[in-house]
Amino acid sequence: MTDTSDALVVGVDFGTLSGRAVVVRVRDGAELGSGVHDYRHGVLDTELPGGGAALPPDWALQVPSDYLDVLRTAVPAALADAGADPRQVVGLGTDFTACTMVPTTADGTPLCDLPGFTGEPHAYVKLWKHHAAQPQADRINELARRRGEEWLARYGGLISCEWEFAKALQLLEEAPELYAATERWVEAADWIVWRLTGNYVRNTCSAGYKGIRQEGGYPSPEFLEQLHPDFAGFVAEKLDQPVGALGERAGGLTAEAAAWTGLPAGIAVAVGNVDAHVTAPAAGAVEPGRLVAIMGTSTCHVLSSDVLREVPGMCGVVDGGIVPGLWGYEAGQSGVGDIFAWYVENQVPERYHRLADERGVSVHEVLSELAAGQRVGEHGLLALDWHSGNRSVLVDHELSGLIVGQTLSTRAEDGYRALLEATAFGTRMIVEAFAAAGVPVTEVIVAGGLVRNPLLMRIYSDVLNLPLSVVGSAQGPALGAALHAAVAAGAHPDIRAAAAAMASVERAVHRPDPGNAAAYDVLFAQYAALHDAFGRGGDGVMHTLRAIRRAAVEARER
Amino acid sequence: MTDTSDALVVGVDFGTLSGRAVVVRVRDGAELGSGVHDYRHGVLDTELPGGGAALPPDWALQVPSDYLDVLRTAVPAALADAGADPRQVVGLGTDFTACTMVPTTADGTPLCDLPGFTGEPHAYVKLWKHHAAQPQADRINELARRRGEEWLARYGGLISCEWEFAKALQLLEEAPELYAATERWVEAADWIVWRLTGNYVRNTCSAGYKGIRQEGGYPSPEFLEQLHPDFAGFVAEKLDQPVGALGERAGGLTAEAAAWTGLPAGIAVAVGNVDAHVTAPAAGAVEPGRLVAIMGTSTCHVLSSDVLREVPGMCGVVDGGIVPGLWGYEAGQSGVGDIFAWYVENQVPERYHRLADERGVSVHEVLSELAAGQRVGEHGLLALDWHSGNRSVLVDHELSGLIVGQTLSTRAEDGYRALLEATAFGTRMIVEAFAAAGVPVTEVIVAGGLVRNPLLMRIYSDVLNLPLSVVGSAQGPALGAALHAAVAAGAHPDIRAAAAAMASVERAVHRPDPGNAAAYDVLFAQYAALHDAFGRGGDGVMHTLRAIRRAAVEARER
Repeated sequence: MTDTSDALVVGVDFGTLSGRAVVVRVRDGAELGSGVHDYRHGVLDTELPGGGAALPPDWALQVPSDYLDVLRTAVPAALADAGADPRQVVGLGTDFTACTMVPTTADGTPLCDLPGFTGEPHAYVKLWKHHAAQPQADRINELARRRGEEWLARYGGLISCEWEFAKALQLLEEAPELYAATERWVEAADWIVWRLTGNYVRNTCSAGYKGIRQEGGYPSPEFLEQLHPDFAGFVAEKLDQPVGALGERAGGLTAEAAAWTGLPAGIAVAVGNVDAHVTAPAAGAVEPGRLVAIMGTSTCHVLSSDVLREVPGMCGVVDGGIVPGLWGYEAGQSGVGDIFAWYVENQVPERYHRLADERGVSVHEVLSELAAGQRVGEHGLLALDWHSGNRSVLVDHELSGLIVGQTLSTRAEDGYRALLEATAFGTRMIVEAFAAAGVPVTEVIVAGGLVRNPLLMRIYSDVLNLPLSVVGSAQGPALGAALHAAVAAGAHPDIRAAAAAMASVERAVHRPDPGNAAAYDVLFAQYAALHDAFGRGGDGVMHTLRAIRRAAVEARER
Repeated sequence: MTDTSDALVVGVDFGTLSGRAVVVRVRDGAELGSGVHDYRHGVLDTELPGGGAALPPDWALQVPSDYLDVLRTAVPAALADAGADPRQVVGLGTDFTACTMVPTTADGTPLCDLPGFTGEPHAYVKLWKHHAAQPQADRINELARRRGEEWLARYGGLISCEWEFAKALQLLEEAPELYAATERWVEAADWIVWRLTGNYVRNTCSAGYKGIRQEGGYPSPEFLEQLHPDFAGFVAEKLDQPVGALGERAGGLTAEAAAWTGLPAGIAVAVGNVDAHVTAPAAGAVEPGRLVAIMGTSTCHVLSSDVLREVPGMCGVVDGGIVPGLWGYEAGQSGVGDIFAWYVENQVPERYHRLADERGVSVHEVLSELAAGQRVGEHGLLALDWHSGNRSVLVDHELSGLIVGQTLSTRAEDGYRALLEATAFGTRMIVEAFAAAGVPVTEVIVAGGLVRNPLLMRIYSDVLNLPLSVVGSAQGPALGAALHAAVAAGAHPDIRAAAAAMASVERAVHRPDPGNAAAYDVLFAQYAALHDAFGRGGDGVMHTLRAIRRAAVEARER
């Protein structure tokens, strides 16, 4: 094993709008420096870089050269910030948004970089939030249900329109010539590692959660053929590739990539990873039962277990999907921070904004402080947090928000607090679903931007009746990527050992108040009743309203 | 019959904050002039005029001399405004808020005008919205249910804390010496007629709707004794009094009142009346089936019928309570305009206020215009209009508001429109309850401040699938009082004839759009489902939230 006394690793987190590099000491996980680079093209959701035809609604593309720019700028900046000698760096790790797909030639060249394809939307990277493949996802789900495909249960019964197969089928059906030119259909998480090492290795995590890879296999050619005759060979021809476990060495840094980054050629590069999942080891969550909730616009929950169970409404369960040797579970709440932002933008009167301006704080802080003085239940409200639909545990994106209990004395801060609580109740539904399925949650570790709201944290701790631990690093994913780099470099024998040395978590930062927890038990029972009344049992009022709304909008457009 | 070619009458409407007089031509109902007087003391809800001890929450008192000032100022002002010769005036009619109670001596002197009583809150007028007698009302209802009192069904199963018996019982229990000094417990509607004529005549309307007078009798001494031993003689000693039908002559104007008003002594003064009910004849609603909705902060519905039926959740049914010879029904929605006002104050962001300022219109107008462009159902929302509880048809003030269907693209105008629609659905529940009980509604006539919102009117017409007529006068109650004055003076033989000559209504101003009506049928079915799910069947989530809220507030105060 390498002497780790002074050895460093670099982790690079590729997010939605920027990439972030962090230089970390292998011995103790100390973060010595960081650098950030905003993607020049950001998210393409209205037009291509050169202009041309407008993109349809629900499209979200990216330009792969933006990712390489992160290597060229953020990594050197992080090294400089750390005052580190690049020769101390023994490994590089990355994580990426997912499912984010690059159509490439056999050597990994993105189609959009080829002459003649720069004006083709389908030649670009389809970002995770490209939602234009919903019709394809619907057909995949319907066919899988009809055929009784066993893999469907591993995804809570629902393949997302964000994932590899739906996006590929959209490509085939809308641009068959580009589909034909696509020799490899590559997760960006793996594409960046391919650029760094010259080796194309798929990672267990993306392949399992986004690529429907289970027990080493994929959906069958017969299944694919029933979706579209020309789709039968998709896996064999364009998708399948050797898979590397998380923390494995994908290869050595090429001379070209060494020149981009300023790092020594030949150092270990870890196989790719997904931003949410890579955060778990960074938070020390490498043992069964430790659930990590990455809380931002939406919340992603990752949890490892030594048992395989079918948990209703999870996003996926993958062997070694988070930590090699354990079953990795993912669940999600499709709306969290974006619901709070929607409320502030659309349902909060000016006096709160004025108060925020006067005090130099955000409206969220003003509302939280006003609501923090209330006793549990004092506002008399109860909400359902389904403004963006419900991912786990109902897996229904036709659901919508609800708030009950309003009187003429209800104030904006009351509704705000009710929404904070609703998302906490939503998390509790997920934790209880795991427990009921035989996958108990013993600790909750939170990460992400929302961690900075102390009222929200207090509510989550009280509602869950569990202590909340907090990821210590402000850059959890990049730290997680660095940790995997250390394993790939052999500086730690495995991820557990690396986490023991390098993870950063503050344990039990928020502890439940027994009185509040008891009061929330009563409210949660009411939430659960509303949850089932509106969320289960077919065509309820929310589905009817959605259908009426859709018909009204269509009638307008005719 | 008097020659009516030039004859005039004066109607005076005593409202919550002011009194308003109108001079009307008997022949055709032309409104020739008006005058208004704001009560000097307004509503006493924090302290008495001379200061002293603070009033408890839920109290609302008035000073009776303020009413006399209306006679002294608004009536002469109206005569001057009309350019009328007072000698043309043949009659005077009044209407009043109800139930508004004056404790007096045997000659009608208010207790608060007696030396030694000016510092006693219980010596003042208890305004309709004095809500501090709820414990007494609860006991009245409970005892009536237990004893199976037949009159209870005439009031939808619930006697209000606003009414005569609850307020009197509060007086007895909290200030027995003042109760003893109260020789007469007088509706302000009758007290003002007593001042004008020297005769104390109770009116059918207040006595029936607010005084539990049915079939000529009142709750029995045995019933009253079970409420409180000293309450047994309440009816006989303090309340009972000859009752005059609406439109009857209570007496001639006294010389003293003639001096106050500038009107000729001896002219006919009609028996008292209630502001909502007096509006029905002013709108020509003197035939069965014409429902008048007076829409403001809350909505009061009055409807006459030739049959007596028990309609679930009505406020009361009284023989001759609106028009002599017909059964008068009253129903109500406890929150309407106040819900819209609450929303604008608490859930609408600044940009709408800025838009309103720029255009010199109200925020209500801005929201209405934005929402008016939508197709039915396009906002995807559905609301329950129970922010102030539900009067008809559920008779449950522990209910609360609800809104369902919110997404991240929901805007403030969407929620506003959903609330407008919710109150229309609430009205439809009442209309359907009347029809189901065998009291069909054939026409809806609207009055009150909300009539000026064209979107609201269009929604009501579409939701009810009925043409909406509109009261022509901006001062419907005062016109109604004048109409009764004409009958009392013998200028018209009865109220029907007077209404035929003097009523002011624009028929079918708003007509339903068949497509919208059909679309609202679907939404109303969903509203009805939510209505029953949350409003019926005992301890649902709204009651639980209310109980939790109450406990939380009490815990805070301990």
